[in-house]
Amino acid sequence: MKQFEDRIRQDGIVREGGVLKVDSFLNHQMDVALFQDIGKEFFRLFGDSGVTKILTIEASGIGIACITAQYFQCPVIFAKKNKTRNIAGGVYTAKVESFTHGKVYDVIVSKDFLKPEDRVLLIDDFLANGSALQGLISLVHDAGAHLVGAGVCIEKAFQPGGDLIRAAGVRVESLARVKSMTPDGGVEFC
Amino acid sequence: MKQFEDRIRQDGIVREGGVLKVDSFLNHQMDVALFQDIGKEFFRLFGDSGVTKILTIEASGIGIACITAQYFQCPVIFAKKNKTRNIAGGVYTAKVESFTHGKVYDVIVSKDFLKPEDRVLLIDDFLANGSALQGLISLVHDAGAHLVGAGVCIEKAFQPGGDLIRAAGVRVESLARVKSMTPDGGVEFC
Repeated sequence: MKQFEDRIRQDGIVREGGVLKVDSFLNHQMDVALFQDIGKEFFRLFGDSGVTKILTIEASGIGIACITAQYFQCPVIFAKKNKTRNIAGGVYTAKVESFTHGKVYDVIVSKDFLKPEDRVLLIDDFLANGSALQGLISLVHDAGAHLVGAGVCIEKAFQPGGDLIRAAGVRVESLARVKSMTPDGGVEFC
Repeated sequence: MKQFEDRIRQDGIVREGGVLKVDSFLNHQMDVALFQDIGKEFFRLFGDSGVTKILTIEASGIGIACITAQYFQCPVIFAKKNKTRNIAGGVYTAKVESFTHGKVYDVIVSKDFLKPEDRVLLIDDFLANGSALQGLISLVHDAGAHLVGAGVCIEKAFQPGGDLIRAAGVRVESLARVKSMTPDGGVEFC
């Protein structure tokens, strides 16, 4: 998605340790007009797959998933990072390791909202080591639902997540695939 | 908002301890068609206030805020609950006590995205004791920005948050104001 790559080049900031900071438009301040273009592109890619639910993970996937779901006319579920008082009863659980936060945590989805008859599209802002996406895939499998694929905004193609998940037979569509980043702030796409 | 009250009566579940569970349509599974109606109603209420930014708090406010922002054609910022590696530099900080999780945490917003010239609308799913909203108000004040008001989906009018914040001169618009809940699952609106 050329326009999105241009935006990353223009407003993304490269930091030490392989961090690409896009918090001015993607995951802290959120440009919803851009999200509409992203959502339309995901619909172009997955619109004929009979998606019944979009599954994402809190927090930064939620906005993109909700805007995208308008085009699919389906609900969004977000996997929660902490067990709250408000989720009683059965949940599916998966472990996720956060690249950004450097820790492992459980994510949960209520069994009420993910069913064997569902056709699930995963949506997330980043794909790097793939831990979040693998956690979501595991939740879909536990529910016995059909996994349509994963729509990712930015894939760090120099980290192993994308290759691993594609090798497992999952369709992964990334709108921008970063090949490399240079310390002077340059971003090169695949 | 009659249609929203009907939905809460139909799909909300009353639990012990004053908990109103709406996770089948509002804050775990999210009905984006309903969010569009909610967003249009917030725009009807605040559309003439010159809003330049919508501010919410992770995680469950994000989806509603993003759908709503489409009508205002402005960006969304979400206050983050944990300091991540990706936010360097200056942040505004406020303390928030979670009714649902029963703990106190810091929320932060980057100083890059909240400016004195901004006219800020707060959006959240729930207003109960008001701690989250008061945290967001404090972030807006710290930035020297203009607070337009707060749009809340469900206000628990039997808890003190709404009265406290209105008494402080903030315009609060709640789409459903719950007067009382009964153990047999009944919900009465103001």
